[in-house]
Amino acid sequence: MNAGLKVFAPASVANVACGYDVLGFALNKPGDEIIGRLSDQKGLRITKITGAKGKLPYEIEKNTASFAAQRVIEHVGANGIGIEMEIHKKMPFSSGLGSSSASAVAGAMIANELLKRPLTKRELLHFAVLGEQVADGAYHADNVAPSLMGGMILIRDNTTLDVHRIPTPKGLYASVVHPQIKIRTQDARAILSDTVSLKNAVEQTGNIAALVVGMFNSNFDLIGRALNDVIIEPQRAQLIPNFYQVKEAALEAGVLGCSISGAGPSIFALSANSFIAEKAGAAMQKVFFDNGVDNTLFISTINNEGAILL
Amino acid sequence: MNAGLKVFAPASVANVACGYDVLGFALNKPGDEIIGRLSDQKGLRITKITGAKGKLPYEIEKNTASFAAQRVIEHVGANGIGIEMEIHKKMPFSSGLGSSSASAVAGAMIANELLKRPLTKRELLHFAVLGEQVADGAYHADNVAPSLMGGMILIRDNTTLDVHRIPTPKGLYASVVHPQIKIRTQDARAILSDTVSLKNAVEQTGNIAALVVGMFNSNFDLIGRALNDVIIEPQRAQLIPNFYQVKEAALEAGVLGCSISGAGPSIFALSANSFIAEKAGAAMQKVFFDNGVDNTLFISTINNEGAILL
Repeated sequence: MNAGLKVFAPASVANVACGYDVLGFALNKPGDEIIGRLSDQKGLRITKITGAKGKLPYEIEKNTASFAAQRVIEHVGANGIGIEMEIHKKMPFSSGLGSSSASAVAGAMIANELLKRPLTKRELLHFAVLGEQVADGAYHADNVAPSLMGGMILIRDNTTLDVHRIPTPKGLYASVVHPQIKIRTQDARAILSDTVSLKNAVEQTGNIAALVVGMFNSNFDLIGRALNDVIIEPQRAQLIPNFYQVKEAALEAGVLGCSISGAGPSIFALSANSFIAEKAGAAMQKVFFDNGVDNTLFISTINNEGAILL
Repeated sequence: MNAGLKVFAPASVANVACGYDVLGFALNKPGDEIIGRLSDQKGLRITKITGAKGKLPYEIEKNTASFAAQRVIEHVGANGIGIEMEIHKKMPFSSGLGSSSASAVAGAMIANELLKRPLTKRELLHFAVLGEQVADGAYHADNVAPSLMGGMILIRDNTTLDVHRIPTPKGLYASVVHPQIKIRTQDARAILSDTVSLKNAVEQTGNIAALVVGMFNSNFDLIGRALNDVIIEPQRAQLIPNFYQVKEAALEAGVLGCSISGAGPSIFALSANSFIAEKAGAAMQKVFFDNGVDNTLFISTINNEGAILL
């Protein structure tokens, strides 16, 4: 049996305050690993899954990673090939960190690597989003695109995958705290009102535009003023106990902004340097610990590589 | 009597499709001129108004231009000075081209120039917005900021005048058609719903962010996809007879996008070069002429100078 190849796909922060449904960025860790190898036995098989506590299916069409891989294999006309894959979940489910997206991206990546890279990352995107759709139900790229391509990614339109990289300034760090609380993505969606006040919609457009300007111009002050969500955060904050205390602790530590990562319960903050990011991370953790909530902290630059062959 | 100084403040396009209330850009023409001179007679006086058909007041505290000038004079502590100003309106009222903003900007500018430029343009902004507020009732910089500072300007927040220049690609041209129809700004506001669907709010944030990315990256295709207003235009189009035909004519001529300028009735289109801008302008005019609506066309690059001393 050959040693095979190993790919890594990172976690990601979607929504990014004023960027609900249109903005996401990749973290350095955590993330998922998939080991794949060619096999004499025709077809795609999952031979092992670790770190998933029995929650992930082995059926090719039901598992996000193998679903994405299978679509890549079909697209390049390699149906006759034999591939075995081991999925190593190394990040929590339902954390708001794009867990299923990382799996889907890793699945698409491993198939592409084993087939000697017939597709570019941009071409893989559609298949990875299809994989994520198996878990999520929606064709949404806001976690998949940054996990695959790296960096901070704007998704102007999901249907056409009109995605664009937004440059981020040197020194930008994320502090992400994942509390041991469960929020189902469906619940986080159901809580949202179908309507928004025109005033808030205008404020949100001003902020997202300013956030992009701030990123292009490395204007940390502007990024700080723009990282403000007047639409989604006020509705979802109630799903995360101690949210406002955690945010206050982060702001007091000097972060540029702090909001809910994805659909939560993870909370992210962005800082202008690693010192503030670490200080803020510790302060955010302390609030949860003081309230008896176990939690994990990730400190990361913006991961500009995205998914990689290890 | 001395010859005095003359300033010019240009028209501007606000709202800019997906940039309702947060984005505006300056045109090369039309615009307003103010001639000012120092006088031995203490205080600020308007000695002449042309082009206004008697619609503009001579009272200092009621006229946008003199109001702005007076605030500048007070701010720099020059209350003892004597200043005479002639206001030459060279653009239409209630056109959606920022007519009162141009007057307010010219007023702030002429005072500053006669006082030997104690303030920067950025410092003048507040006083020009105060002048515009006399006409409009709201403290809004979306026409004033581009008319004063030039270029395409993002107004993240009006209260704090958090304004930022967005670079525009070489070759970007505006075609603006002003039909002889009257829309009162108040009516254009009253027609707007107080609420927006979450779906449309998200689409608008994706588009405005993409528009900024397109401008920074000189990506004309992206600018074209992003110049799309799903919130305001569908509500206000009914106020402008033949709007959709005019827009269709512009799009057929190859423009990047087309929408309502300010609160209307003017309609603007942005193009990747002057050839398309002229072709589109002629096509837009033809629709109005064919429907018996007299109209005026302005073709312009993005005016990066803003208000100037002539």
